[in-house]
Amino acid sequence: MKRQTAPLAMFLMAVAVMPAISAALAQTDPLPSWNDGPAKKAIIGFVQSTTDKSNPKFVPPEARIATFDQDGTTWVEQPMYTQVMYCLERVPVLAKEKPELKEVEPFKTVLSGNREAMAKLSKKDLEKILAATLTGMTVDEFNAEVKKWLETAKDPRWKRPYTELVYQPMLEVMKLFRVNGYKTYFVTGGGQDFVRVYSEQVYGIPPEQVVGTAGGTKYGYDRSGKPMLTKEPKLLLNDDKAGKPEGIHLMIGRRPYAAFGNSIGDKQMLEYTQAGDGGRLMMLVHHDDGKREYAYGPKSKVGTFTDALMAEAKQKGWVVISMKNDWKRIFAFEQ
Amino acid sequence: MKRQTAPLAMFLMAVAVMPAISAALAQTDPLPSWNDGPAKKAIIGFVQSTTDKSNPKFVPPEARIATFDQDGTTWVEQPMYTQVMYCLERVPVLAKEKPELKEVEPFKTVLSGNREAMAKLSKKDLEKILAATLTGMTVDEFNAEVKKWLETAKDPRWKRPYTELVYQPMLEVMKLFRVNGYKTYFVTGGGQDFVRVYSEQVYGIPPEQVVGTAGGTKYGYDRSGKPMLTKEPKLLLNDDKAGKPEGIHLMIGRRPYAAFGNSIGDKQMLEYTQAGDGGRLMMLVHHDDGKREYAYGPKSKVGTFTDALMAEAKQKGWVVISMKNDWKRIFAFEQ
Repeated sequence: MKRQTAPLAMFLMAVAVMPAISAALAQTDPLPSWNDGPAKKAIIGFVQSTTDKSNPKFVPPEARIATFDQDGTTWVEQPMYTQVMYCLERVPVLAKEKPELKEVEPFKTVLSGNREAMAKLSKKDLEKILAATLTGMTVDEFNAEVKKWLETAKDPRWKRPYTELVYQPMLEVMKLFRVNGYKTYFVTGGGQDFVRVYSEQVYGIPPEQVVGTAGGTKYGYDRSGKPMLTKEPKLLLNDDKAGKPEGIHLMIGRRPYAAFGNSIGDKQMLEYTQAGDGGRLMMLVHHDDGKREYAYGPKSKVGTFTDALMAEAKQKGWVVISMKNDWKRIFAFEQ
Repeated sequence: MKRQTAPLAMFLMAVAVMPAISAALAQTDPLPSWNDGPAKKAIIGFVQSTTDKSNPKFVPPEARIATFDQDGTTWVEQPMYTQVMYCLERVPVLAKEKPELKEVEPFKTVLSGNREAMAKLSKKDLEKILAATLTGMTVDEFNAEVKKWLETAKDPRWKRPYTELVYQPMLEVMKLFRVNGYKTYFVTGGGQDFVRVYSEQVYGIPPEQVVGTAGGTKYGYDRSGKPMLTKEPKLLLNDDKAGKPEGIHLMIGRRPYAAFGNSIGDKQMLEYTQAGDGGRLMMLVHHDDGKREYAYGPKSKVGTFTDALMAEAKQKGWVVISMKNDWKRIFAFEQ
């Protein structure tokens, strides 16, 4: 570099690092939707200690991995998982294409619209509905269908798109982690292909950082000879409970330093995270706010949080987040 | 920021951006190990056009994905895949732990050291050897075993560690892509867990960007109650041929913009890459340099490059890299 270019170079440097400075200034409180308390303190303490080179808990940038469950941890999962709502609402569309389904169970019950009867559908019935609505089409067709549905479908309680029922405090945590060099991943029991459709836009998590329940695809060619991938009814990864650490190994290949969940489906992911060396952060969102969101725990079929899980959390030093006490606001649309 | 801190801030800025400036200066020729020719021109042209906002082929940074086959594309695969060498050399270690194997085929043949007999082993025999040496242990044990082997094992021709038999021109391509915002992925028929052990150190590709043939793991606890993952003899992804686009969808969820291979195992990955919109780059390394490396093609069992693949490449505009003509040097250790 020649000496006379220095002033220009200095100017360019100043411009180049301005975003970084702005970000630093904006970070006076990186978690404005959190009340002061042990949960907020644990998050900030973890990020500070693992990014401070002089701290024994320092984590090198390339190893900074944080994993988040989705349903019930970063968005609403009651009264039913959003993806299941998608599958149920796809059935009438499917029945138009294949009228023979109208007389076949469990599709007949779903088409009746009888919610009481639908609530009684067995696990096997539900699997039939999932297989019919999540497989058989090309990957591109599926993406387009989900995208279109998300644009118009609304949650029955808030009358808003499902993608607005995202927990603002958790978005702040994800952002704080990313600003500090962490790669944020979803590790969800939900369908990997389903979550990938909106994860980047809604959460800032790119498709390649979504680990979820995954089925196989089949490579082939359409009539014009163009390559395509078709979604097959073949389960490769059931990304729930023990499947979560297994999925993390398959898709990431590194142990997370921080893991967030909200139910018995996340227990093994938190155990696996904690089993690593150095500083680790394990947190569970507890739904104890029936007024602003929902209050549920051991008895809920969706997002079960048993007493045994609470006991394990206390014994192992996992931090339980009280939605009621720790979150100043829950959704971005709240005043 | 207070005004009087400006000089210090400017100094810090200067320090912060120096690496970027050095990198830019060093980039006069980003591919110094390549001879001028159509292959080098195609790579540089692709990177320039897809990172130039005013070009119709511009690719937004988050979508910049480039995939590389490993064996034969970024390192030597003859006379036998490195991972197979690992498995064969593990057999004596295994036989020490389980002496009963000494009398059982195909282990007996491997232990005999009779290379002629070993070359005649069937695919089924080989699968038995792979299952015995690649599964049954914990993920941590496997990583430690591979790491230890790589430190001492040597290629029979060059008498060097396998991790030095890496193609310098391809390292330069990977670096050029990364400097331009591309995420570089391995998409290899080799074992995902095997390649992850050294991919970051040798190629700058982190474990989470290695897509390979993958088996299942099983979550459990050791005697002290510590969580562990055990490698199971259950194939989840055969990441070869049609399995490559399937693996790309499973692990990345985005279509690559550039793909590099060297054999019929890469055909579908290149087709799938080309089937996307906009500018795409498909390249095949052709082993035509028997003097500096190896010359092989249609008749080789390892890294088969058929006449049909060559015809498809020509017809579809895939660029064939001649090791003999396009590469100035092959290995970093050459003068």
